[in-house]
Amino acid sequence: MADKASTLILFGATGDLAARMLLPSLYGLDLDSLLPDRLRIIATARTEQDDAAFREHVLKALGDHVPADYLDQDKAAAFAQRVHYVPLDATHPQGFKALADAVGPDAGEIAIFLSTAPSLFKPTIDGLASVGLAGDHVRLALEKPLGTDLASSTEINDAVASAFPESATFRIDHYLGKETVQNLLALRFANVIFEPLWNARAIDHVQITVAETIGLEGRGGYYDPSGAIRDMVQNHMLQLLALVAMEPPASFDATAIRDEKVKVLRSLRPITRDSVEQSLVLGQFGSGAVDGQPVPAYAEELGKPSETETFVALKAHLENWRWAGVPFYLRTGKRMPERRTEIVIQFKGVPHSMFSGKGAQARPNRLLISIQPEENIELKLMAKVPGLDRHGIRLREVDMEIGQKDVFSDVRRRIAYERLLLDLIEGDPTLFVRRDEVEAQWAWVDGVRQAWKEAGMTPKSYTAGTWGPSAAIALAERNGVSWND
Amino acid sequence: MADKASTLILFGATGDLAARMLLPSLYGLDLDSLLPDRLRIIATARTEQDDAAFREHVLKALGDHVPADYLDQDKAAAFAQRVHYVPLDATHPQGFKALADAVGPDAGEIAIFLSTAPSLFKPTIDGLASVGLAGDHVRLALEKPLGTDLASSTEINDAVASAFPESATFRIDHYLGKETVQNLLALRFANVIFEPLWNARAIDHVQITVAETIGLEGRGGYYDPSGAIRDMVQNHMLQLLALVAMEPPASFDATAIRDEKVKVLRSLRPITRDSVEQSLVLGQFGSGAVDGQPVPAYAEELGKPSETETFVALKAHLENWRWAGVPFYLRTGKRMPERRTEIVIQFKGVPHSMFSGKGAQARPNRLLISIQPEENIELKLMAKVPGLDRHGIRLREVDMEIGQKDVFSDVRRRIAYERLLLDLIEGDPTLFVRRDEVEAQWAWVDGVRQAWKEAGMTPKSYTAGTWGPSAAIALAERNGVSWND
Repeated sequence: MADKASTLILFGATGDLAARMLLPSLYGLDLDSLLPDRLRIIATARTEQDDAAFREHVLKALGDHVPADYLDQDKAAAFAQRVHYVPLDATHPQGFKALADAVGPDAGEIAIFLSTAPSLFKPTIDGLASVGLAGDHVRLALEKPLGTDLASSTEINDAVASAFPESATFRIDHYLGKETVQNLLALRFANVIFEPLWNARAIDHVQITVAETIGLEGRGGYYDPSGAIRDMVQNHMLQLLALVAMEPPASFDATAIRDEKVKVLRSLRPITRDSVEQSLVLGQFGSGAVDGQPVPAYAEELGKPSETETFVALKAHLENWRWAGVPFYLRTGKRMPERRTEIVIQFKGVPHSMFSGKGAQARPNRLLISIQPEENIELKLMAKVPGLDRHGIRLREVDMEIGQKDVFSDVRRRIAYERLLLDLIEGDPTLFVRRDEVEAQWAWVDGVRQAWKEAGMTPKSYTAGTWGPSAAIALAERNGVSWND
Repeated sequence: MADKASTLILFGATGDLAARMLLPSLYGLDLDSLLPDRLRIIATARTEQDDAAFREHVLKALGDHVPADYLDQDKAAAFAQRVHYVPLDATHPQGFKALADAVGPDAGEIAIFLSTAPSLFKPTIDGLASVGLAGDHVRLALEKPLGTDLASSTEINDAVASAFPESATFRIDHYLGKETVQNLLALRFANVIFEPLWNARAIDHVQITVAETIGLEGRGGYYDPSGAIRDMVQNHMLQLLALVAMEPPASFDATAIRDEKVKVLRSLRPITRDSVEQSLVLGQFGSGAVDGQPVPAYAEELGKPSETETFVALKAHLENWRWAGVPFYLRTGKRMPERRTEIVIQFKGVPHSMFSGKGAQARPNRLLISIQPEENIELKLMAKVPGLDRHGIRLREVDMEIGQKDVFSDVRRRIAYERLLLDLIEGDPTLFVRRDEVEAQWAWVDGVRQAWKEAGMTPKSYTAGTWGPSAAIALAERNGVSWND
């Protein structure tokens, strides 16, 4: 593994992600003495301000976003002392000199986190390269969106590659930083009991749901040109799908894991003009109510009419031996009834029931991997209801749970970014997304979008606070499948 | 299914089993209105007494053995009114006339429960037959011991068969009345996820433990000529083994289930003179302490020296496709450190671990089916310890539980005999042991006993309050297996 970085440069340091996630994560790592002792954090953004002013901003961000029981004023103050600020407009190449000066000549390993608009990626990379902040001793983390389609993604990746080798390019998908997502790997590959079941012989279908209750939250300028499939499916959901579906990697390292993920992504069956209407439902929320509060329609929130989908449900297939014939149902939407991210592994029913009579109906087994709002893993089994069974044996579904909260209550829950920032600082790319993965994701999503355009599909309206258009229910029910609502 | 019995005749009605189990079970069934309305219970034993005196005995037995929260004085009194008493010495055939008179000429279906010494089985059956209490409308339940070897068991079964067809012969193994034992069938055959794992490919070995803390409890006259293998292994433990190992029955009925069990029992590999020393350990407890109380040695409790085994541990194999090469470790003993009946399904380890580093050792999965003192089913899995994994991923064993008590807390726990008595009254033989099963059990156990005698094996002494002789540990450890202590 690479040496630990001694400098972390944060682009977009005055932004929302930095305040809510990145600074609290770095503080959390510092609190637990996990940051390298000599690590300096150099924050940059366009705003003109000095170290002292930005440190005030840091302390305010921590006060706003760190849970009170982890917020120690002395530790926060000490953390703020690690932080320096260099004002920088990435569109003015001459500004990078000041950044290089701040980093200094013998900085050792440098980690850079770009939390900026994609339009700034290229000028920023060029600027970094122009002052020597590139090359073997520098690694670069990028946050989504990495383009809006395969072509623009390739353009960004080419720009990155001009200054940073692939091994130094850390593409963030923050879902990969979540405990339960990593636990999925432990579950699949540290237990012998799942692998014989983890295929088309035993599994009926897989559901992946990413439901938000929020609407645009003022991010219409970013969201409306993107839409649900590019905002959620292309990255997070296809990554989850890849982790569920991949073959066993030989080891827990960047190459082995990403080799297996990309194989899955490349085996996604294209959705074409001919199949799209049977495979996809688009939705856009109308007005309605969420959590008992009335909320406006998407177009009203956006301030103009739009054909952007705020909901997508689709049925994907993998063309390989393990998953032949097993549908992967994916759905994501805004203004859903609850915030929930989960993976459902729905097993087939027993091939023959030895039990008869009322109450002896066995529901097929189900493994439920909950990622948000609570992380949990639950196996739903049938058990006998205790009793004398005068009218035949009675069965009841029971849950076997690995409650993360209960079982591991001695361990503090961390923000997903803590893991990813530390991996970036220490140079471990395992939980970052490789270029070929991103491109495979885009290639498939581009095909889906192309198909729906050719078919003239537009989003169906759904009432805010519901699980999307009724067509999304029909999409699954046509195959006898019910969404896990 | 047969018609419900209108008369239940209880032989040995003044005995210990009747007081502790049978009368409380019948009361429990009556309390829940599960007994046929017109059911009369005719109790017999040698003691001369009238109905009123025996009803006093019934009320005292209920007072002593029914949990206070289920004991309703009015209901108990009403129950006692169902009970009649006929003094009877089974060795005097002329006494059966009075019993037949008490039953009356048009009694309909009759169920008979023999809770007597095996030496009385034959005279009792002859006596019943002599007064017409046999034939199509009568079913007979027998409690262990059904003989002391295959020959004596055959003799008893022949005597029974002379008056009762096999379909009317209800051989009791009270382990089959236990909820968790029946739940094992639900677990295996109402869930699709276990069957692909339930064989030699995924399972390393199976352990069945029946541990008692008690010693002889004054039953030396019965126990000493018998010993652990005949008292526990021949019946209960081989039945548990058969339920664990059997192929899926086509239906939950007497023929289908018992056909599958007997196939397992017949596929037990004989333990011979050549293999017995590697496959079997005998023990007899010396003095020691159980639950902090000093207890005397077996010979002292018995009042004479003895070569009877109070402990046996053995390694059995099934010669069929499913279980080839999978050892079944069985052990049972008196004066163990705790009372515990359990089945452990030990899965193999993962074929290859993708995780490396300290703390990433995956323990093989294990399914633990606890029958006593608490009924519970637990699946032991590996999960990731939440954290940042600076030295590689860390794994921890977690339990997924179906706690019978918690999950089904709305249902009263019943005595195993409640289920079996009701099945007897209603004529359902599914949970009773068929003649061919008993005979297959004896044939195998006779072979084991023959082998150890030929090898000149005698019980090794073990300290009361321990898990048997150290050789029992070695028996398992030679194959890299540790008992689940």
